[in-house]
Amino acid sequence: MAKELKNFTKRSDNYSQWYNELVVKADLAEQSAVRGCMVIKPYGYAIWEKMQRQLDDMFKETGHQNAYFPLLIPKSFLSREADHVEGFAKECAVVTHYRLKNDPEGNGVVVDPAARLEEELIIRPTSETIIWNTYKNWIHSYRDLPILVNQWANVFRWEMRTRMFLRTAEFLWQEGHTAHATKEEAETEARKMLDVYGEFAEKYMAVPVVKGVKSPNERFAGALDTYTIEAMMQDGKALQSGTSHFLGQNFAKAFDVTFMNKENKPEYVWATSWGVSTRLMGALIMTHSDDNGLVLPPKLAPIQVVIVPIYKNEEGLKAISEKVEPLVKELRSRGISVKYDDADNRRPGFKFADYEVKGVPVRLAIGQRDLEEGTVELMRRDTLEKETVSFDGIADEVVRLLDDIQNNLFVKAKNMRESKTTTADTYEEFKEKIENGGFILAHWDGTTETEEKIKEETKATIRCIPFDGDKTPGVCMVTGKPSSQRVIFARSY
Amino acid sequence: MAKELKNFTKRSDNYSQWYNELVVKADLAEQSAVRGCMVIKPYGYAIWEKMQRQLDDMFKETGHQNAYFPLLIPKSFLSREADHVEGFAKECAVVTHYRLKNDPEGNGVVVDPAARLEEELIIRPTSETIIWNTYKNWIHSYRDLPILVNQWANVFRWEMRTRMFLRTAEFLWQEGHTAHATKEEAETEARKMLDVYGEFAEKYMAVPVVKGVKSPNERFAGALDTYTIEAMMQDGKALQSGTSHFLGQNFAKAFDVTFMNKENKPEYVWATSWGVSTRLMGALIMTHSDDNGLVLPPKLAPIQVVIVPIYKNEEGLKAISEKVEPLVKELRSRGISVKYDDADNRRPGFKFADYEVKGVPVRLAIGQRDLEEGTVELMRRDTLEKETVSFDGIADEVVRLLDDIQNNLFVKAKNMRESKTTTADTYEEFKEKIENGGFILAHWDGTTETEEKIKEETKATIRCIPFDGDKTPGVCMVTGKPSSQRVIFARSY
Repeated sequence: MAKELKNFTKRSDNYSQWYNELVVKADLAEQSAVRGCMVIKPYGYAIWEKMQRQLDDMFKETGHQNAYFPLLIPKSFLSREADHVEGFAKECAVVTHYRLKNDPEGNGVVVDPAARLEEELIIRPTSETIIWNTYKNWIHSYRDLPILVNQWANVFRWEMRTRMFLRTAEFLWQEGHTAHATKEEAETEARKMLDVYGEFAEKYMAVPVVKGVKSPNERFAGALDTYTIEAMMQDGKALQSGTSHFLGQNFAKAFDVTFMNKENKPEYVWATSWGVSTRLMGALIMTHSDDNGLVLPPKLAPIQVVIVPIYKNEEGLKAISEKVEPLVKELRSRGISVKYDDADNRRPGFKFADYEVKGVPVRLAIGQRDLEEGTVELMRRDTLEKETVSFDGIADEVVRLLDDIQNNLFVKAKNMRESKTTTADTYEEFKEKIENGGFILAHWDGTTETEEKIKEETKATIRCIPFDGDKTPGVCMVTGKPSSQRVIFARSY
Repeated sequence: MAKELKNFTKRSDNYSQWYNELVVKADLAEQSAVRGCMVIKPYGYAIWEKMQRQLDDMFKETGHQNAYFPLLIPKSFLSREADHVEGFAKECAVVTHYRLKNDPEGNGVVVDPAARLEEELIIRPTSETIIWNTYKNWIHSYRDLPILVNQWANVFRWEMRTRMFLRTAEFLWQEGHTAHATKEEAETEARKMLDVYGEFAEKYMAVPVVKGVKSPNERFAGALDTYTIEAMMQDGKALQSGTSHFLGQNFAKAFDVTFMNKENKPEYVWATSWGVSTRLMGALIMTHSDDNGLVLPPKLAPIQVVIVPIYKNEEGLKAISEKVEPLVKELRSRGISVKYDDADNRRPGFKFADYEVKGVPVRLAIGQRDLEEGTVELMRRDTLEKETVSFDGIADEVVRLLDDIQNNLFVKAKNMRESKTTTADTYEEFKEKIENGGFILAHWDGTTETEEKIKEETKATIRCIPFDGDKTPGVCMVTGKPSSQRVIFARSY
């Protein structure tokens, strides 16, 4: 059983299959009976809950409040903003009826044709339209601004090719929707929330990200600018992990949302929206995990420390439990989530394998000999290093180790990214290097034509025009036209 | 403005209209553009979040974990359980297509007839079917049991008559779905979760509830027993506030979910499900609020204490702010949520009215004279009593007062309920008394026929067969047949 648990595809053999197997073996999620929709299992959901709680705290610290808007959107709302409808109408779930009835031929239930809706409803793929239709009633004067609202919700996009967490038809996310009196304030908000995402990714997920702006071609449908955080997975592919959009006055115009400014003149409202989703789970899994299973940063691990007693009989267990109990209490009082696994229906070897696959950052094992010698065996999941240490002061050691693991995972991921980030000065060089994956910094002439040519020929897209780094101008590797700075190309999820 | 805020229908004039106006004036929710669906506004959502957090903690303390299952359910799943499909097929939202396309006649977008689903999908009205279809893969042996899972989700029921929070097409809820090896364990679980609901209603919402079992006619579609907590609103109507169902083996049989018992023989799994929803917001509002607006129990109030400075100029404000700052800090350090409202674009009178309408439990007002005399004006929202007290020791006084308000609201609601609870021995007496509302304890012969006759003639239903109280047998007030105990009748929401 223990072997079977850890018996899955290696990253080097098939990275994509390794990921799919890991998601199932670590008990994170599974395919459901509904095409493209997954079931998020309790262990996977517990990680998502930790992410949610932290993000929610960060949103509230930056002045946002939560609210809830309808799941269903009248079809006509989508058409109000021209780019938006192009982006979302082609992959949405359409509700056309509101009743089933018994099949006259006796085969279960059928759609009742008499219960057809006058106007079809769309399951929200994103909520700009329904929210701006609502904001119209909330906003009259500059005094009503800004509106800083976030929503935690499920959304639905009828994707053709789905992969658990990375791209599913239904997914869970948060979507912030803010309204402002000035362009500057909205732009500042969009950038501020990108910074929140960046901080969350790096400090909590231990996933280093590049912040930048999307090329026009990769913008959110309806945005004037889309800011993004881009992470690199272990196979060198990019994963867009969060986006924040400056929407200008597009949705205010589409839904006729104006306010009286301080000079008592009507103006259209300025908008942003920003979101991260259960896709972050994919980023988390793919950044840190290894051939033995999941590796979790301590700050997001549902179980940070597991303690496994190794005993021969009831009496032996009792002695260990008495020794361990004050330690469990102390760790918990220090805010650490501890599981003391004294279940007698699984052997220690099985437990070790199970917690390894599930990515529990620190494992303590304690047996009869440890009791006698005042020791405990300590294993850290990130490096799989094991050592026998003194039981005295173990709580301090665990706290220190959790910090160390959190930092180590970040440094490791950052080193990986740096080792796979390179530059290309000619298109030939680019085509050669892109085969090895990674981020390639190259000059581009700023046109969609060139971007699409590159995508077609190499499957690489512009991940972003990075905010930081080298700003030296140059010439486009494809057309030789001027380029104001290098941009990041990569193949992506 | 301040007057306008508080200018709404009195309870005694039109209770139902008072409720509708209150929901809007207190900024809790509003109707959306989608029929029967509401927008939950930030202030209303903040109350719901406090409820969620507390309930979630209670579920976890009783060993449950959260998970997430798909929003959409294949139509055929509904038909698997005969009672279930009868109960839910008639009011569900049906997804039939997965794409829109540009209208060939140029009017926005239309449903693409080429994108018709082979099998229609239903937006979940409740998740028993999709979840038991999933549990089939999770359960093989008695070692896999129990499964104690909860889901926070949105659900959809196409209700004809809707009212904000009380009955909406889309609503937010939690649904627990547990699987057990024995009948006894499942029944114990269903009762345990009813107790959790009862404790939450009474200790946090300050809403007294009667616990009992539903008559067969009022059971959840697919349950063998439905347990309920019933609350009484100020107009004497009952509000079913939470239900917990013992599902027997119905869903296990419908989805073929068996396990190998300890004797290695296959058995069907036993099930429960239990849920509370945003309907609790309706119960909370209607139980405590008055003609001046919302009244909130301190344990669920997003703002527990508001402090309003009364000043003539910048300097005056500065002096007050300096005095108040340490108090704000102290209250926050004691876990109390405080708002210091020094906004200069609203007058104190307007602020007073606004926080009164919003039900903030405690208001402190402090002006120049208070500074000189070392006093502060304190107002409690439940009784609207105002007094001027010493500023020294005000933090202790506030903490004591919040406790007192929490208790007082519960006692007041309980007294109200008791004053409107009566008995009836004859059907004549019953018909007379039911016109005044309230709970009527009466004998009933246990048949659906009699229950439906009573409902038709008086609009009263059996709210529950209460667990506690008088168990003396008698005879049915309608048919004269034997009755084992009195049951609770009421008109209801």
